[in-house]
Amino acid sequence: MSKLMDMPKESGYAAWLHYSRNSKVEKLPAWCRVIVVHGTDEVLQSAASELQHGLTSMFGQQPKISAVPVNTPFIALGTFPEHPLVAERFSAKEQAEVSAEGYRIRGIEMPDPAYSASHGNDDIKGQYVTIAGQTSKGVLYGVFHLLRYLQGGLDGKLKPTTESVHVPILDQLSNPANSIRMINHWDNMDGSIERGYAGGSIFYDNNAFTTNMERLRDYARLLASVGIQALSINNVNVHQVETELITDKFLPDVAKVAAVFRAYGIQIYLSINYASPIQLGGLTTADPLEPAVAEWWQTKAQEVYAAVPDLGGFVVKADSENRPGPFSYGRHHADGANMLADALQPYGGRVIWRCFVYNCKQDWRDRKTDRARAAFDHFKPLDGLFRENVILQIKNGPMDFQVREPVSPLFGALESTQVLLEFQIAQEYTGQQKHLCYLVPQWKEVLDFDTYAQGKGSTIKRIVSGALHSPKHTNYGIVAVSNIGADTNWTGHLLAQSNLYGYGRLAWDPDLSADEIADEWVRLTFGRQGNSDGGTDLISTLKQMLLDSWNVYESYTAPLGVGWMVSPDHHYGPDVDGYEYSMWGTYHFADCWGIGVDRTTATGTGYAGQYFSPNTDIYESTDTCPDELLLFFHHVPYTHLLHSGQTVIQHIYDTHFEGAERAAHLRDTWVSLRGQLNAAMYEQVLERLEHQAEHAKEWRDRINTYFYRKSGIADQKDRPIY
Amino acid sequence: MSKLMDMPKESGYAAWLHYSRNSKVEKLPAWCRVIVVHGTDEVLQSAASELQHGLTSMFGQQPKISAVPVNTPFIALGTFPEHPLVAERFSAKEQAEVSAEGYRIRGIEMPDPAYSASHGNDDIKGQYVTIAGQTSKGVLYGVFHLLRYLQGGLDGKLKPTTESVHVPILDQLSNPANSIRMINHWDNMDGSIERGYAGGSIFYDNNAFTTNMERLRDYARLLASVGIQALSINNVNVHQVETELITDKFLPDVAKVAAVFRAYGIQIYLSINYASPIQLGGLTTADPLEPAVAEWWQTKAQEVYAAVPDLGGFVVKADSENRPGPFSYGRHHADGANMLADALQPYGGRVIWRCFVYNCKQDWRDRKTDRARAAFDHFKPLDGLFRENVILQIKNGPMDFQVREPVSPLFGALESTQVLLEFQIAQEYTGQQKHLCYLVPQWKEVLDFDTYAQGKGSTIKRIVSGALHSPKHTNYGIVAVSNIGADTNWTGHLLAQSNLYGYGRLAWDPDLSADEIADEWVRLTFGRQGNSDGGTDLISTLKQMLLDSWNVYESYTAPLGVGWMVSPDHHYGPDVDGYEYSMWGTYHFADCWGIGVDRTTATGTGYAGQYFSPNTDIYESTDTCPDELLLFFHHVPYTHLLHSGQTVIQHIYDTHFEGAERAAHLRDTWVSLRGQLNAAMYEQVLERLEHQAEHAKEWRDRINTYFYRKSGIADQKDRPIY
Repeated sequence: MSKLMDMPKESGYAAWLHYSRNSKVEKLPAWCRVIVVHGTDEVLQSAASELQHGLTSMFGQQPKISAVPVNTPFIALGTFPEHPLVAERFSAKEQAEVSAEGYRIRGIEMPDPAYSASHGNDDIKGQYVTIAGQTSKGVLYGVFHLLRYLQGGLDGKLKPTTESVHVPILDQLSNPANSIRMINHWDNMDGSIERGYAGGSIFYDNNAFTTNMERLRDYARLLASVGIQALSINNVNVHQVETELITDKFLPDVAKVAAVFRAYGIQIYLSINYASPIQLGGLTTADPLEPAVAEWWQTKAQEVYAAVPDLGGFVVKADSENRPGPFSYGRHHADGANMLADALQPYGGRVIWRCFVYNCKQDWRDRKTDRARAAFDHFKPLDGLFRENVILQIKNGPMDFQVREPVSPLFGALESTQVLLEFQIAQEYTGQQKHLCYLVPQWKEVLDFDTYAQGKGSTIKRIVSGALHSPKHTNYGIVAVSNIGADTNWTGHLLAQSNLYGYGRLAWDPDLSADEIADEWVRLTFGRQGNSDGGTDLISTLKQMLLDSWNVYESYTAPLGVGWMVSPDHHYGPDVDGYEYSMWGTYHFADCWGIGVDRTTATGTGYAGQYFSPNTDIYESTDTCPDELLLFFHHVPYTHLLHSGQTVIQHIYDTHFEGAERAAHLRDTWVSLRGQLNAAMYEQVLERLEHQAEHAKEWRDRINTYFYRKSGIADQKDRPIY
Repeated sequence: MSKLMDMPKESGYAAWLHYSRNSKVEKLPAWCRVIVVHGTDEVLQSAASELQHGLTSMFGQQPKISAVPVNTPFIALGTFPEHPLVAERFSAKEQAEVSAEGYRIRGIEMPDPAYSASHGNDDIKGQYVTIAGQTSKGVLYGVFHLLRYLQGGLDGKLKPTTESVHVPILDQLSNPANSIRMINHWDNMDGSIERGYAGGSIFYDNNAFTTNMERLRDYARLLASVGIQALSINNVNVHQVETELITDKFLPDVAKVAAVFRAYGIQIYLSINYASPIQLGGLTTADPLEPAVAEWWQTKAQEVYAAVPDLGGFVVKADSENRPGPFSYGRHHADGANMLADALQPYGGRVIWRCFVYNCKQDWRDRKTDRARAAFDHFKPLDGLFRENVILQIKNGPMDFQVREPVSPLFGALESTQVLLEFQIAQEYTGQQKHLCYLVPQWKEVLDFDTYAQGKGSTIKRIVSGALHSPKHTNYGIVAVSNIGADTNWTGHLLAQSNLYGYGRLAWDPDLSADEIADEWVRLTFGRQGNSDGGTDLISTLKQMLLDSWNVYESYTAPLGVGWMVSPDHHYGPDVDGYEYSMWGTYHFADCWGIGVDRTTATGTGYAGQYFSPNTDIYESTDTCPDELLLFFHHVPYTHLLHSGQTVIQHIYDTHFEGAERAAHLRDTWVSLRGQLNAAMYEQVLERLEHQAEHAKEWRDRINTYFYRKSGIADQKDRPIY
């Protein structure tokens, strides 16, 4: 493992892979003293090496890696085709149940209670732990599963037993729900990260690639450990320098980075500049229907794939927020995406085409244009026109990663187009990793949302996995914007690691609950750390902090789904009118009488009509629209009664007073755990929670004062408003 | 002259010193074919060289410079003590009327109508034009006066005649009203300019001094031509690199720059970091009463003056907006300033100490603290405690260069302290040189304001010139923040050159009217340029544009003196609540009932009580408070009736609709002049005026919509509000 992993545990660098020494176990348990691996595949080697490292770290003794079975218990790692000892533990049916990147783990059969004493057995059949996959990637994921189990004494599905560290009795099958489980980096080559809140880029500095490959490898390990297998390594806003990533100037560097991640089963993607034929090729146009343009991209693809033969493909933000695209030439997005897709097709490359296309030069005076409608209006008419290797990337909501939005109506509406659901792990609008905001509950709501696209049960998770419309296609899945940077603890706020962890786990298995994921992450991160061995109180208290945090953050920020009450540009801190008179299509229309955006079909922008029934009807009426989305869909008087029985204005006051109190409570809860945490970890989190508690008061007072001054309606409880 | 002066006239580089060829005069008039100079003083040499250059440029032939008189008419340049031919033209009384930096110009006596034909005269007495001063600086200013007269065919006091270009019959005495006529640069060594709107710094780039001394010299010429004689060359916010300006690292560069400006009679000042003893000296304190600190500064002053013997002194922003200062050590500002003054005193150096001291971490919830009070509250108690070489620099208003503020009550309140009045030529809050805003009318209002400090007639101009309190002291005057940068035309907006010109002229003579100054500048800049010879229509139309522009800008921005409705940080464009919930002490307190800041003594912050009677009473009551300052002093309902007879809310609507129309009219007026202007100058200004017209609409709609939404009161004329 990298030298960086030797950093003190309390730095947070090792994150959930810290594999602290298990003080209850004196030496390496017998069953894991030898790892038997067949095959030279580098991902398999990574798997073996990870297992060896994890066991050594936890048990204080290094297991041997062997190519041949031994006469004592061991762990067999390998794929069904390549490792006979692995294959023989599973029936043909059992093997067939494993998907391309899935795995099976099987423990030692019929464990002999006296085994741990006797330590010997002539018949090795069944006397070994098996981690098996169709591919070495599956084996790697299986290894991380076993390590999670040993490290946390837990598994999402299996509860720990005392014996388990001695003799794993696992019998586990796990297949990823989503074929594509991706992370987007918005890193720029100058070392900055667009919407980065944890330091600079780990990939670049000063317009060159990093030389710190150890850090990249540790990042690959973190990602692989939660099943991520795709990574775009540069900002979707492709600036001048980054445009050259697909040229000789940088392709050798891209190849080096790809090699690091390849060893962990992760495919690299590049974000490209749609205008590259002009900027790099000297053409006068980037028109997708111009043969010279298509030809330029074909030649370019050949060059790129010569350097990185297994490149995942291109990520494209076109005609969006001032980026160039096919609109410039009167073409539609299928023209643009397909032209690129044809160029990548010979190499198995994909085009991931973002649907974040809207008019960002909107006149705030114009109440008819509705940014929320834009993705649907642009892409629904193109359904079915895209090549097999094009995937449309759709943000979870119609706006932009607000703390509360409805689900994008494009999910389900596209029936014959492969899609990726885009989340944002980076807390751009949710406290920027200064505030605690565990986002898994939000993501779960999205994934579990029923679109009714093909009747009841047409959930988002079934749509984005392909299960609903096209179960045979594998160009489906989930992608998310990274929250990591060069900060030692990766995410700035140590507890924000839970979002990276949770995202990966959820992309693998969207049926995991937010609670289960929080439980795993807390145990892995805080179990056997600091002054405590992760007792029940610590675990459950931390878990509750995480589970409460999204709701806490929502309660003191923009109310009832209206969004956007943040400082322009940097998006941190309250500014109720910050986006009210802007070009960004992001308004609340508060006046002295009321607030909200009328998106109904009857009297508003018609956005509510983009959903399938019954959602469209639910949103259309204030009688049925959920309170938390009321102001997203309706403009109502401050005196409008919510389903909660409270008026809108009193709800604003109440939630903001309570929210600030709850933020203070998060801090107090942390303080109450002081004795159970090591000092350095305690301090780094405390600083953020203290800031959050103060900043929540600022949110409270600014929002409340704004609405009191505007409405003239006093708080029923007469609390201080300015 | 510099090669840079060869840039095309239409670039605007030569500004009001372009000296275009006078096509009505075929050759060099006889009276100016020889310039007779006595003395080797470098400022006198600059004067001669400027005169030679100007005449050559205007008349197409180069005059000779001679050390001895000739037998034909000539121009005599020199000081009374050094140039006998100069001295003999003036009586002792006439000579005594000239102050240190003043001048006299006397034309050829009893001009012979046939003179221009005869071209000869044995008796040279009176047959020469004389430019005289007590010092060479006076002579230099006299030269620029003559050139102004010849170039524009005008003078503030004298009207042009056809004959004047042939035979000047001037008899002119001019003394500057203010001993100090200074410009502050807010340039940083990285090349940026804080509040710079015309490109980067001409002094620095990339943390080093410029090597473009020609540009600096041309800047010195522009400044000297309007009488500026002091210049601080770095930002008052002294960052890390700039802290080292007073060290060996940069002093040789400072000396080079000082030499360039010295030749034009301009003294250089440096802004210093109050914490230098710590940051440079390795001391643990910067306490002004700590002997080691005083000693450090004494040694430092010796070092600095060894490098630049005529350095003007130090400019200090202490205890202001996060800058260090004596408050850190529980000392007052006189302690801090005097300690520095003692260090500079042996070298004749001055300490210019800024009074822009206030709490910039104010809680917006606290309505009792009033930033407007701060300068008075901090410095009035210190009156009389400062050394002879300390000057307090006071911004014109109590806030910060808003489009409309009352005059700072500190003027007049300080009776035994020397003061500098600080203006801002840079249009930080007045359109950032994208909007036209000729500021001379605003400055005139300030200068003519009667403080009643010593009864009627105690005008600001008499206070800042020293005339009111201390006519013998010369450490009085006016300073202003520069509006120039590396843009070819110096000021970004070509017409913003009028503010630099106007500032200099006003600092010399505060009795000049805004109209006179505009007239001069327009004639000098647009006379004999482009397709026109500067006909009456062009001149008067352009002048009217300038004279209207401040009022136009005010009309569509923050209403009735309340200020601050700009985007935070960059201060450009409307954002009504942009500063409402900030720490900067800058609020309007608008709610659904009314708006304004109660600064009365009776019910408010008491700020109005800082003025002398009758001003204090005038401001205290809404009955007498001028409309344009109403919201600065009072919180009133939207339905409050102004003296104009209009309600506050209707006034807001009316001025904003009219303001946007008037901004469009500025553009239309410019367009109407197209035929009379050369294309390049026309286009560069048109672009800005078009932007202004559009941006004024944005201001109109945002301000009107904000107040309509907040007040719920409709426009009486039912114009579009959103």
